[in-house]
This record gives sequence, C-alpha cells and structure tokens, in this order.
Amino acid sequence: MLNDTVLVHAPATIANLGCGFDVLGLALAAPYDTLRLRRTGAPGLKITHLDHYNLPTDPARNVAGAALLALLEKVDEPVGFEIEITKGIMPGSGVGSSAASAAGAVVGANALLGNRFSQLELVDFAMAGEAVASGVRHADNIAPAIFGGFTLVRALAPVLDVVALPAPPLWVAVVHPQIEVKTKEARALLPTAVPLGLAVRQWANVGGLVAGFLTANYGLIGRALEDYIVEPARAPLIPGLAEARRRALAAGALGGGISGSGPSIFMLNHDGETAHAVAAALGSVFAELGIPHDLHVGRIASEGARVVAE
Amino acid sequence: MLNDTVLVHAPATIANLGCGFDVLGLALAAPYDTLRLRRTGAPGLKITHLDHYNLPTDPARNVAGAALLALLEKVDEPVGFEIEITKGIMPGSGVGSSAASAAGAVVGANALLGNRFSQLELVDFAMAGEAVASGVRHADNIAPAIFGGFTLVRALAPVLDVVALPAPPLWVAVVHPQIEVKTKEARALLPTAVPLGLAVRQWANVGGLVAGFLTANYGLIGRALEDYIVEPARAPLIPGLAEARRRALAAGALGGGISGSGPSIFMLNHDGETAHAVAAALGSVFAELGIPHDLHVGRIASEGARVVAE
Repeated sequence: MLNDTVLVHAPATIANLGCGFDVLGLALAAPYDTLRLRRTGAPGLKITHLDHYNLPTDPARNVAGAALLALLEKVDEPVGFEIEITKGIMPGSGVGSSAASAAGAVVGANALLGNRFSQLELVDFAMAGEAVASGVRHADNIAPAIFGGFTLVRALAPVLDVVALPAPPLWVAVVHPQIEVKTKEARALLPTAVPLGLAVRQWANVGGLVAGFLTANYGLIGRALEDYIVEPARAPLIPGLAEARRRALAAGALGGGISGSGPSIFMLNHDGETAHAVAAALGSVFAELGIPHDLHVGRIASEGARVVAE
Repeated sequence: MLNDTVLVHAPATIANLGCGFDVLGLALAAPYDTLRLRRTGAPGLKITHLDHYNLPTDPARNVAGAALLALLEKVDEPVGFEIEITKGIMPGSGVGSSAASAAGAVVGANALLGNRFSQLELVDFAMAGEAVASGVRHADNIAPAIFGGFTLVRALAPVLDVVALPAPPLWVAVVHPQIEVKTKEARALLPTAVPLGLAVRQWANVGGLVAGFLTANYGLIGRALEDYIVEPARAPLIPGLAEARRRALAAGALGGGISGSGPSIFMLNHDGETAHAVAAALGSVFAELGIPHDLHVGRIASEGARVVAE
C-alpha cells in the first residue's frame, strides 16, 4: 500500500556553469524548495503556496502544475494531487527556482505512483514547467534538480539525453544581488551566431570542465569555467560582476560566473573555509553598491529532488 | 653517459574526433613513423628520408626539422642532430603524418638531451612542424602524438593547456581513400561563424564525448561523436563519406567521421572483431567507387612517440 502523502525537498541548481551554456548544471545542497504532495482519487490539481511570492496557482500557469499535467498525461488511472509549495529558493534569483518546484512536484508524484517513471522521464515532464516559466523548454536546471551532482544535457531532441556525472568534493558560494534579470530578457541579449574560433575555445572549455570534474582536477576546473560567449553578452545586466569575480578569485575561488541567466553569481571552491571567504568577498561588492543581496554557501548535492518524509 | 643515437616510433593520430574540431585527438597503435636520431657535437640539422615521398629535407621546411629548430632555441650548448625518417604514415592521409614526424623528432632529441623538457614543452616545439605543414600552429594531432591516449587541447594561448586523458579499450578502423585533401583547402571550407544553437549542440557533444571516454560509456561515445559544424562543410571533399558511415554503423561501429581534415575516415568500435568488419565495410565503398584505399585497424595507443631502442 502506497502512502498518500510525501514531503519533498528540491534543490537549487546552477545552470550553464560558466562555459556550458544550455547544457551543464549542478545541484546545490541549499537552498531548496519544500513540497508536500497528497494523492487524490479524482483527477485535478490543487496548488497552494505557503510562501509570500504571489506565484500563480492555476496549474497550467504554475511550474509545478505544468510539470504535473505533463506527467498525468502518461497516467491512465484517475489520479489528482494537492500540492503545497514552500519556496526556499527566491523566484528570479537565477539558481533554478522554477526548476526546483517542477522537479520536486514530479519526483513527489512519481513516489505516490510507485516510482513508475524513470529519472529521465521526470526530466522530460519537468521541462513543461520551464516552458511556463521562461517560454523555453530547457533542461539545464531540471537535469541536476532531478539527478543531483553534475549533469550534461547532451541533447533535447530527437531523444532527450542527460548524462549524470559524479562531482568531486566542491563548495559553492553564491551571491544573489536583488536586481531583476528576466530569463527572457537575458536570452534576448545572446548573439545569434558566434565566430568559429570562439566556439572552438568554448567547446574546449566544456570538454575541459567535464574532464576536470571527472578527474577531480581542481586547477583544470578553474581554468575551464571561463565563458567566452554568453557571459560577455550578459555582463551589463549585473553591475558589480567583474569586481565580484576579481575579489572572489583573490579570496581563493577556483572560478565561476553568472548562475543561469542571473542575477546570481556562483563561484566554485576547493573547501568550505575558502567558500565562506569567497561569499564574503562577493557580498562586499554588492554591499558597497548598496544592492541588497543574499549569500549561500554549500556543497554540491549528490542527490536531486527527493522524498524526505512520507 | 647518454647514448648518442635513439630509434623512435611516432604514432598516427586522429584529430577532431567528430565533434571536437581543433581540440580533441587520439593516438593509434599503427601506423607510425620511425625516426633514428643521432646527436652531433656541432650545431646543425641533417635530415634524410628513407622513404619515397620526396618530402623536403631543408630543416626549416621539414616538419621534423622545424620542430627541432624550435627545440634547439631552448638549448644553450652546441648540439646538432642527424635524423633519418621512415614514413610509415602516408603524407596527406589525414591521420597526423606531419604531427608524427614532428613529435618523433622532439621526443628523440629530448631523450638524447637527458629528457630535460616536459611533454607539454615538446608539444609546443612540435607545433612549429605543424606550422610548416599547414600554415597553422595547431596541437590537435601533436598532443596525442606526444601524450598518447585521448587528448584535449584546452587552450593554445595565453598558455598552452593540454589535458591528457586515459581512453577505455577501443578499436579504431580507418580507411584512407587516396584522394587529395589539402589541410589548407579543407580549412578554407570552414564557416567563419556558426549559429549559437548549433554551437551549443556541438559543445554538448564535446562534453559528452569526454564523459563517454572517462566513464567508458560506449553508447554515449557513439552518440556524442556527431559533428554538426565541420563535417557537413567538408563532406563534399570526400566522395563516399555518407555511404561509408552508413555501412560502418550497420557493421557495428559506435560512430566516427572525417579524420582531421581528411580524406581518411575513422570509426570507433567496441572490439577488434567489429573493427575489422567495419574496416571491410568502409573499404567496400571505395572499392565500388574505384578509389584506391588503405585500411588500418588497431587499438588506441596509450603512449605517444617513444624511444624504442638506443
């Protein structure tokens, strides 16, 4: 007999990860969203937000709702869910807030349905949530939010291909300056074409970053994080970015960049002590600019969204 | 007391490796060039070819000579070399013929000088040979010719950064159709800019291929080899390419593509039996086209150019 209620934690994630625009991502141990799902016998979704962000509760317009609607299309029996969401991840912060709610919803629903779907199928469902949030079905936050660790979305089509990889021990420092960067606007800044030579340098870094993670080569990770294409285009959206990077590197960070489409900035670090010093360095820049900001320091999470209580 | 003569084998290499234009490469167990180097007390290089290719013997115009001249710039004492080269790798075949001679020369010279230079320095010297051969200082063949295995040239500048990685057991089938493809001409066909979306798909494959090699995930290797950018531009240079790929995949190849700038075509395979069947399939296409061709089947070489006798 399956339980009819689960409590799920769904992690924040960092997409792009420097050089890996649209394909690389990793999961953070904190912050995370908390979702309580109850299975009901009648079709239908009821979404309640226990937070103060005024997010839509109409299922088709809510990221968790849209993800669950995609999942329910593959369920034959009459099933519905009541979902209570507590956002631990601030919407618009650039650390995968929408992905966390979408991933948490489908992981919870899958548990209530006897785990009939694979993690890859859950990624596919949860992408429907991303389409609601940003207008684009992308998996670079969803993949780590489901699989945990370090992920590569090798292809979205013709067949979704996600490569889940172990990450070496690493600490992440994130600063979220409270300025608004809309994903759609950040996408509008992207170049439509890139010089071949620059694309080559970028894919050399993508290969280097994957190799660095898989061989725990911290120096290589630091060198390979550099993004030659997307960050230069988006840098004007985030005042203080260049100075934040300078101070983070001086404080010992391996490297970093814009998290997703911003405005958060992430830095990878060898150890927790360094990560805290780097967070302080990042925070100091925005304090001087008079921009309110949050800081997060934590390890990479080896697991993605998961049931924490039934 | 150092010996004054060494015999070196320097392997053929496959550059680009599908998706990894200008950055990925691997070393083949065969074919290889054989170089005999003798250290002389007086400055100067004397190059003799024991093969029938009529390659230049003027050191500044010979790939081995140019590489040795770059090395000798870093040597203070009066040293010269006599070099006898036997080309096991046909020039212009697209499996790193020039890189092998350049790599073999600097590896041999380094042995005669007490191995004072690192492998990375040897890559740097040997790139001078590539500049002679193709007009471009590139390291995608040189890196595997020196390090062996599977290599990623992460950056040429500001600091040369080569990542040498272990390869899983893999067999390579290569067909060399005897048509002329000049590296310079093949480069002229390249697009100067690529759509961002295509570049993203390409760097997803580069990351996937590196992950596939490092985790011995053969299915991923096969999927990730696909080149969306360079091979489509160069395909017209190689009649039979599409049919060769089709037959190779039908014979069990994981995947493959143009080796370097062609005309050789490589296919990676899980085992030797498959590799032989794939080579036969590749050969059948060019036999039907009436194009003379050579076939090579062998493992990836874990070592690069090396001294085999003193």
